[in-house]
Amino acid sequence: MPELRIDPIVGRHVYIAEDRAGRPQDYADVEDVPSRRVNCPFCAGHEDETPAAAAETLGADGEWHVRVVPNKYPALADRGVAAGVHEVIIESPRHVAALPELDQGQLARVLAMHRDRLRSCAAQPELAAGLVFKNSGHRAGASLEHIHSQLVALPYVPETLAAELAAAERLIADSHCCPFCDLIAAERTADQRIIMEADGFVALAAYAGRQPYETWILPTAHSADFLAIDAHGCDAAAQILLKLTAALEHVAPGAAYNLLLHTAPFAERGAPHFHWHWELVPRLSQFAGLELGGGVYINPLAPEHAAKELRGVIER
Amino acid sequence: MPELRIDPIVGRHVYIAEDRAGRPQDYADVEDVPSRRVNCPFCAGHEDETPAAAAETLGADGEWHVRVVPNKYPALADRGVAAGVHEVIIESPRHVAALPELDQGQLARVLAMHRDRLRSCAAQPELAAGLVFKNSGHRAGASLEHIHSQLVALPYVPETLAAELAAAERLIADSHCCPFCDLIAAERTADQRIIMEADGFVALAAYAGRQPYETWILPTAHSADFLAIDAHGCDAAAQILLKLTAALEHVAPGAAYNLLLHTAPFAERGAPHFHWHWELVPRLSQFAGLELGGGVYINPLAPEHAAKELRGVIER
Repeated sequence: MPELRIDPIVGRHVYIAEDRAGRPQDYADVEDVPSRRVNCPFCAGHEDETPAAAAETLGADGEWHVRVVPNKYPALADRGVAAGVHEVIIESPRHVAALPELDQGQLARVLAMHRDRLRSCAAQPELAAGLVFKNSGHRAGASLEHIHSQLVALPYVPETLAAELAAAERLIADSHCCPFCDLIAAERTADQRIIMEADGFVALAAYAGRQPYETWILPTAHSADFLAIDAHGCDAAAQILLKLTAALEHVAPGAAYNLLLHTAPFAERGAPHFHWHWELVPRLSQFAGLELGGGVYINPLAPEHAAKELRGVIER
Repeated sequence: MPELRIDPIVGRHVYIAEDRAGRPQDYADVEDVPSRRVNCPFCAGHEDETPAAAAETLGADGEWHVRVVPNKYPALADRGVAAGVHEVIIESPRHVAALPELDQGQLARVLAMHRDRLRSCAAQPELAAGLVFKNSGHRAGASLEHIHSQLVALPYVPETLAAELAAAERLIADSHCCPFCDLIAAERTADQRIIMEADGFVALAAYAGRQPYETWILPTAHSADFLAIDAHGCDAAAQILLKLTAALEHVAPGAAYNLLLHTAPFAERGAPHFHWHWELVPRLSQFAGLELGGGVYINPLAPEHAAKELRGVIER
């Protein structure tokens, strides 16, 4: 029997409908077949194929480890006209495609770069909020395979973040506690959807996940502001992200996903009602008419079962 | 220079960024390759492979032309527990995949069936709103190729429809006119995004379309309520939908799309601020991190150019 779940923060409606998993299909599944380009513009040695770097993390040998370039095909006008920032963070000089191919130190450097670039955006008074996201795999919208993420900063608070903040503000008026802190406490008590907890971070199978294996990663201590993360936090966050993405690859080989950083708008970095986090949204089925037309989602895998599977892989 | 557009009704943010169309890709485009199943459960003669029909349109020969079955893998519990309705409308007894393969009379029968099934839902007091949608092609979420649409009726007003209604209600407070009627008048004056107008319907390239060729089809006379459409209206609507989908196939061969019927909730069928319409959303690029994380869309084709292309095909 399908179960209607309502997201505890934003109120999104999701039907957990496990019997749909076995439905017949006459379309073959579309595979994400990576093509490893010989002339990848993001590989070390090809720096002249991208715009000049906006920032770099250099190793002891003077070579770059993380490189930030303005998006060559920007969705937003460049900062010269104050409309926004759109940058690509190249996460490795080597041609690798997946997060688990990075080591923990390298991913920590990437996260520190996300923080630093967001801080630089926050210092520009015309910018209101920043988004960091990774599109991994063609079905998740990636156009280039070489491991990278993107940063977009906007002169307004984007719709999804604004709605989440408004919902959280309504919730704190009742409970007088950050609703995300409340959620972590409730999930610890329920003990059904926690995938792992380590070094100040917790990973949860989202109660009303839109897709199988949708996972939220949150710092256990209250903080609205990813920009305040320190070096130890980057290292701990890198560890949990690597374990989770490796476990996802194990339970759903080749799965595309979006990894979405939610952090408070620059003017609300101290918000008592917001709590920064990542949402890891696999793209195992297409968002279709019901999702686009109604904002109603169907998830064929119960989050409790997803948590159990992922936990099993991680604990092994 | 990318241009930020804000949808005049729901306020969605879309960047029109035409220079992105030429960006390099190292993933090949995923093609929708239809596989015509020998044993398609939706073809005439295979009725025993689906649940018993909830409704049928019969021809003079006693054979069915349109057949409605409960979804065998329903997202919603069946109406026995009053949680909702989920039906599949099989739009032809023959194994065809695309709307332009239907003739106008057949599509008019399908639209009349949509209306009749929605009326039947509206008569159930526990149901609040109905959605009709078509997922055409794998990238749009179709799992079976045989031409069909789906009807979902819910005991609440789904999020997307609720947001659109609320926005329209705010707008009418200022202008004292249905904002969709206002939109049609403004588009006629601007004369840049009208694709065609015939027999009481108009097709517009959406001002802030999320995808290339996103088109809205509206009745030109005010009506919140698709359930009130008459036989002549079904025929006229069928004509415009066939022309548009044939033109889309011409400019973007094999394009997947979602066709989404927006009609007022059952308790607001006379709403002065709402106006029923279809939104035809091609799925030429994946919704990715920016869309999921921010609710921000990027469209690489200006709606004015899309309108011109589609108009050119239709007028030929």
